[in-house]
Amino acid sequence: MNIDLNSDLGESLGVWRMGDDAAMLDIVSSANVACGFHAGDPAGILRTLREAKARGVVVGAHVAYRDLVGFGRRNMDVDSADLRADVIYQIGALKGLAAAAGTAVCYVKPHGALYNTIAHDERQARDVIAAIREIDPGLCLVALAGSPLLGWARVAGLRVVAEAFADRAYTPQGTLVSRREPGAVLHDAQEVAERMLRLATDGVVTAIDGSTVRIEADSVCVHGDSPGAVEMARQVRARLTQAGVNIRPFVDADTDADACTDAGVAATA
Amino acid sequence: MNIDLNSDLGESLGVWRMGDDAAMLDIVSSANVACGFHAGDPAGILRTLREAKARGVVVGAHVAYRDLVGFGRRNMDVDSADLRADVIYQIGALKGLAAAAGTAVCYVKPHGALYNTIAHDERQARDVIAAIREIDPGLCLVALAGSPLLGWARVAGLRVVAEAFADRAYTPQGTLVSRREPGAVLHDAQEVAERMLRLATDGVVTAIDGSTVRIEADSVCVHGDSPGAVEMARQVRARLTQAGVNIRPFVDADTDADACTDAGVAATA
Amino acid sequence: MNIDLNSDLGESLGVWRMGDDAAMLDIVSSANVACGFHAGDPAGILRTLREAKARGVVVGAHVAYRDLVGFGRRNMDVDSADLRADVIYQIGALKGLAAAAGTAVCYVKPHGALYNTIAHDERQARDVIAAIREIDPGLCLVALAGSPLLGWARVAGLRVVAEAFADRAYTPQGTLVSRREPGAVLHDAQEVAERMLRLATDGVVTAIDGSTVRIEADSVCVHGDSPGAVEMARQVRARLTQAGVNIRPFVDADTDADACTDAGVAATA
Amino acid sequence: MNIDLNSDLGESLGVWRMGDDAAMLDIVSSANVACGFHAGDPAGILRTLREAKARGVVVGAHVAYRDLVGFGRRNMDVDSADLRADVIYQIGALKGLAAAAGTAVCYVKPHGALYNTIAHDERQARDVIAAIREIDPGLCLVALAGSPLLGWARVAGLRVVAEAFADRAYTPQGTLVSRREPGAVLHDAQEVAERMLRLATDGVVTAIDGSTVRIEADSVCVHGDSPGAVEMARQVRARLTQAGVNIRPFVDADTDADACTDAGVAATA
Repeated sequence: MNIDLNSDLGESLGVWRMGDDAAMLDIVSSANVACGFHAGDPAGILRTLREAKARGVVVGAHVAYRDLVGFGRRNMDVDSADLRADVIYQIGALKGLAAAAGTAVCYVKPHGALYNTIAHDERQARDVIAAIREIDPGLCLVALAGSPLLGWARVAGLRVVAEAFADRAYTPQGTLVSRREPGAVLHDAQEVAERMLRLATDGVVTAIDGSTVRIEADSVCVHGDSPGAVEMARQVRARLTQAGVNIRPFVDADTDADACTDAGVAATA
Repeated sequence: MNIDLNSDLGESLGVWRMGDDAAMLDIVSSANVACGFHAGDPAGILRTLREAKARGVVVGAHVAYRDLVGFGRRNMDVDSADLRADVIYQIGALKGLAAAAGTAVCYVKPHGALYNTIAHDERQARDVIAAIREIDPGLCLVALAGSPLLGWARVAGLRVVAEAFADRAYTPQGTLVSRREPGAVLHDAQEVAERMLRLATDGVVTAIDGSTVRIEADSVCVHGDSPGAVEMARQVRARLTQAGVNIRPFVDADTDADACTDAGVAATA
Repeated sequence: MNIDLNSDLGESLGVWRMGDDAAMLDIVSSANVACGFHAGDPAGILRTLREAKARGVVVGAHVAYRDLVGFGRRNMDVDSADLRADVIYQIGALKGLAAAAGTAVCYVKPHGALYNTIAHDERQARDVIAAIREIDPGLCLVALAGSPLLGWARVAGLRVVAEAFADRAYTPQGTLVSRREPGAVLHDAQEVAERMLRLATDGVVTAIDGSTVRIEADSVCVHGDSPGAVEMARQVRARLTQAGVNIRPFVDADTDADACTDAGVAATA
Repeated sequence: MNIDLNSDLGESLGVWRMGDDAAMLDIVSSANVACGFHAGDPAGILRTLREAKARGVVVGAHVAYRDLVGFGRRNMDVDSADLRADVIYQIGALKGLAAAAGTAVCYVKPHGALYNTIAHDERQARDVIAAIREIDPGLCLVALAGSPLLGWARVAGLRVVAEAFADRAYTPQGTLVSRREPGAVLHDAQEVAERMLRLATDGVVTAIDGSTVRIEADSVCVHGDSPGAVEMARQVRARLTQAGVNIRPFVDADTDADACTDAGVAATA
């Protein structure tokens, strides 16, 4: 049994630090690296990419709306020409830095408001899909498990990877409980670790109403933006590994060739 | 006889227009395309790249300091880690957009204050050279004819292309007359065209004191930021072509393979 | 009879020019000056403010979402704490530059997507109203004629000025015809001038279906972003003046005292 | 005996935190608040201003070059028109936010590279001085003790306040030891506290060569960007207070009137 652990990294900006990239790179198998639009300056991104390369962690482009002050968390009504070009620009920039770090960009995971919007908004979703296909149709797209985006991207010819969130509660329908609802975010590291083990082995989690809900996910997102978050991620990894689940990326980065190859996980998405 | 004509393009920003890219792409053989740090938003850059591709114009990355308000014309004391990563980021972003446009980035020409600084400042020059080598050692570097940068880059293993400026006066030593001096910028299109013909055929120009000075240049920079500038560029091209000088890029963009191949010109630099 | 003519000015950015501020300042009585979030760099804004001062044109703060690349035309879901502080910051910055130019900021006119959003969105409207009251409750707010915003602002204690658009078609209900509809934007300068004369004298315009609709407006927005736009604005002014309508601001800028005083027009809004 | 303690605050940016403003506001008498060019978003700046107001801490504008990624620490060759307008814009923006917070901007302290440059570069110094005079000639300028800037500003009619740095070593000539030299930065909180006590009472510090050097300073800069820095600042305050030195601002913020009045300290500078 395999599962991927991913986390958002490279999100410092100049003198401003965010998270502990080195610690998280010892935990995850895939690193969603900021591309400069919501976070990340080129020198900081390059440092994170070199650390990812040193640890054999696969790299993805964490593309976002152009909104540093809002950290890419604010909905923006970006037209298609801009959104496509913005996504291509960010992926290209990260590819360049990845090449300099001796690694490769293997996938794209949109960030924040863009992530949430394209999970359901078909126009912006198709723009992101088109952008990925235009720059590199071999890139995977990581998207919310159960979202329409997965189908749109698959039909368009992209490899897709469905993602679950370790610290989030799910509705009986398998969607995320809104952050505005009580209980939406889980704080007990041990409980979270057990949930992710069950997800990895049985494909189910306990929904917020106590029912059991099926979540088809090949990757689990863990956070690293606080010491508590890093510790939770560490426990998720430890619990999975202890139970015999392999933490491995959904693609292999064949960095000598600056290319990524299918690791067999994505096929089940 | 061959010579390259290059111009700075893609320098619009959102609603703000600059220059007439379509007109200039009918004149030049190489397009220095802005990368978003001194000018250029991704959608506008992509439009310029598609127009360059449609006309068979070779594309280079016009990398700059991060300074939109100052248009990259202000000296900035950027440290090595930042400068290297900034250059890689910009080249990568342009490579991504170029791939989407079905073309390739074949060379790098620094812009504005960065161009002037690295012509003589060895620390920053070596940072830019290192950045180019880290992302793609096959990229040419376009630099000021007669500048120390040409030697530093050549020794470091880069292909270099020496560049002259069509509308600038030269000192008897072959350096540019400072813009602060009277007569530094030439305005007579016919005179400029004749000067560039002589440069292309004999490798010399008349210096500001009337003497003849040797300028070894494989590319001539023409401007397109005003109707008068476009007309001057058109006359330079017409005069060269009429006299049997081929306007051709110093590299060939083999865009099917997303690659650039040496067109034989750079070897003479 | 009096009416105010206003226009969006100071929208250049560094080397990028937009519009002909000098020409428009000879036409309008009020200048909506960009504050750096959607357009305008400080030095360019200051030039425009000095020209406005020299011509006795009243100055307002053209506040916007923070979005240079999108020129403030993209909807953004900015939370209340940010929106309030962003509006205060922009007004404050313009007040500082206005003081340096020997004039004063007398009113606020939101720009682009912010203008359209707060015309109807109560949450963001209340944030803008609160921001204005926190920095200077004496500032007027210019808002879309007929919009709910006028009432919310008036109840909150702000002086409000209702605005019509010279080159836009109106529905029989007195709302703007959406730009997506045919005929939404008027191009015939003479027709526009006649419409604005009728608006100023009779308080009505001919709606897109031929009916007559009442529009209560104390200010008319004219554009200056193209030579054609400037000419249309000039004709509007000429027609109004010729028919005996005074073009005058809705407030008086008593610039010696760095203050603005009610000119009596706003009271009718 | 009186002395002012100042610190750089409001330097967070969106989600990125820097320093512990609340802790520092219990220690210092003057807060140099970022204005958005090197750090600080409007909502974060406003929070800091409200906290400063609540504690009676006087507020100054920490103006900088426009360089978020470089935190305003990179030298930039900004021309006079831009530098003046940039400084006015920042002061104005902070004045606006200060008004909303019920306080006032009483002084200007340039930040980072701008601080260091104008200490000695007369052209840029005169631009900053002119900017301050144009927006509000009542503002004090805080500058490096012993620097030519103090004289230029005084002659131009500004009130000036000379500043010493608590954690920096001094040369026998009374200038700061360059950060590139060993021993330039002091780390022993107790030693630093004793030095500042001697500075406040006797007007001297021990230079790096052991000699005694006179430093005329009315304000001492303490840092708050790390837990250790906050603790050092606390010890400086405690040592001064214990020895009977009053920690008080060099101006009084008469916030009811949105104005600042001379507290008598600056006169000695």
